Amino acid sequence: MSRDLFFTCQPGIVHGELWSPYSQQRAADLGLNVRMNPKTGRLASEEWADLLADEEAVITTWGAPRFDAAVLARNSRLRFVGHAAGSVANLVSDELYERGVRVVTANAIMARSVAEWCLTATMLAARGFLDYAKFGGSEPPKRESSDAIAGLADLTIGIWGFGDVVRVLLDMLAPLEAGRILVCDDYLSPEEAERRGVRKVDLATLARESDILHTLTGLTHETKGALDQTHLGLLRDGATVVNAGRAPLIEREAFLAELQSGRLRAILDVHYQEPPPAGDDFVVLPNVIMTAHCAGRGSRGRYVACILEEYDRFRRGEPLRHEISRERARHMTNADLVKS
Amino acid sequence: MSRDLFFTCQPGIVHGELWSPYSQQRAADLGLNVRMNPKTGRLASEEWADLLADEEAVITTWGAPRFDAAVLARNSRLRFVGHAAGSVANLVSDELYERGVRVVTANAIMARSVAEWCLTATMLAARGFLDYAKFGGSEPPKRESSDAIAGLADLTIGIWGFGDVVRVLLDMLAPLEAGRILVCDDYLSPEEAERRGVRKVDLATLARESDILHTLTGLTHETKGALDQTHLGLLRDGATVVNAGRAPLIEREAFLAELQSGRLRAILDVHYQEPPPAGDDFVVLPNVIMTAHCAGRGSRGRYVACILEEYDRFRRGEPLRHEISRERARHMTNADLVKS
Repeated sequence: MSRDLFFTCQPGIVHGELWSPYSQQRAADLGLNVRMNPKTGRLASEEWADLLADEEAVITTWGAPRFDAAVLARNSRLRFVGHAAGSVANLVSDELYERGVRVVTANAIMARSVAEWCLTATMLAARGFLDYAKFGGSEPPKRESSDAIAGLADLTIGIWGFGDVVRVLLDMLAPLEAGRILVCDDYLSPEEAERRGVRKVDLATLARESDILHTLTGLTHETKGALDQTHLGLLRDGATVVNAGRAPLIEREAFLAELQSGRLRAILDVHYQEPPPAGDDFVVLPNVIMTAHCAGRGSRGRYVACILEEYDRFRRGEPLRHEISRERARHMTNADLVKS
Repeated sequence: MSRDLFFTCQPGIVHGELWSPYSQQRAADLGLNVRMNPKTGRLASEEWADLLADEEAVITTWGAPRFDAAVLARNSRLRFVGHAAGSVANLVSDELYERGVRVVTANAIMARSVAEWCLTATMLAARGFLDYAKFGGSEPPKRESSDAIAGLADLTIGIWGFGDVVRVLLDMLAPLEAGRILVCDDYLSPEEAERRGVRKVDLATLARESDILHTLTGLTHETKGALDQTHLGLLRDGATVVNAGRAPLIEREAFLAELQSGRLRAILDVHYQEPPPAGDDFVVLPNVIMTAHCAGRGSRGRYVACILEEYDRFRRGEPLRHEISRERARHMTNADLVKS
């Protein structure tokens, strides 16, 4: 196999973040040569077909085309596609998989970044910072409101979903000795629940018993809006909903009403309108902490390094750690659903 | 041994927090009978001596007297003192230890609470929330500023001190896979550093290499103001100082100057003036997150339960888990130093 990889990333802002000193050093360490896409602007399928004609190994990222028959028309050598980003749902095709091309992703690094954000939100909620902390402002912290802080031992953390982010988040939560951890997901086996010391519950139980509720399941036709008025009504007064998944998992109007009444709190990285504008219904609420869809943005400088390490394993015939099967690709979040 | 314990706590606000439903339930589970102090107001030594005359086991908390010869004058039966709070430095006496009384503390629960606060601060700093998050206000989160978030893998966490809080904090940090963890403390053995995967360094190296610096060492004549202008000057631009220890560990004027210039950031639970008033030099700074000395206040409802469980072990002749030797008591933070 060649020591050369072609990177679809075009010159521009994301380029510097991804082709970082860290990733350049890893390329040098591994003796791999990364050639950058010299083209700018939106490319047609034929242009991609020309660019990719002779490549055996390609690194992709945001802005890469779907690798369908048209894009692959002039290439008969492709063996490896490594996505230096998250979901490959909009990248892969049956054509790609039928050629036997191995597809890997740096999603594990993004998942760890999202889990870090979720841990930050968990701690802010558990410690009740919104009640008394001085953040950027110039008013002193409130002393009275911090008299009785629960502490994690007295709290129940609920998690809807059991994907890559949740697995890392559960690893991070393990030494915190939270009172209870509940997980709602069809794919969580009783053995894995036992091994991880969590309890598998349905969505209604999750809502009823959680002090801090994470919505991290994939967005599908089944899950869209599934956390509805009824489920939100089951949450205890003062509970915090933490969303680093997708906004439409939660029914917008019911969620807004519960937050406007002050009964619930929220810590949100994903929003019904992105980025959330000034005056947005959720932005103006004092009981809502927000970030602008950046939970997955940590450690971007490691994405390409992750792909290069995976390619090195591929060249040596070692097992891959971040491969995405055709079956798995089908279950990744479909970006089209977010806006529909 | 008796099943009775006398609790020095007087009727009032802390009473309800400490004699919580959780602790009452633990007393019932263990078959122990807790009798409350019926007296209010400040008591003289002779009054304490009368109250404690027949007790074998006493639970103490804030407001308890030093158990010296005068307070113990009428008691010849005392065997166990359990402090439902943190440091016993102002509680114990040579007289108490010479009688062979066992002294235990709920400090482990307080230490876990402080470690939770430190983890919260670590995550806020690592993810750069101050740069872009909407907290209580009504402005949208900033999108641009969240483009390049480091992530823990790219950060160095430095810790000054190696006491109970730090041990729990290191347990909590373990699964986060931070880039490096440095610890500065004379009592950290090379074996323990190796076992925990941390590097032992001196204070100058700690300052020079940390992205996030925790000041958690005990306040003594040696450590007071030891993080001075020289050491603060070694910190890299944009580093965050996190103080849940004691304010005077850091030289006030040098620290204030570095924060006012905007070169450093800080997340502070302890302050040079407590509680920090409106208009305080540190309160008005936008690059400072503050809480009002509440890091140790989590899970207060478990302090008495912790003491009761320890007393149950004592009655059964089992090894104690939270005993404070005379030697150890001497090294606990001396509250008198904080204000001098």
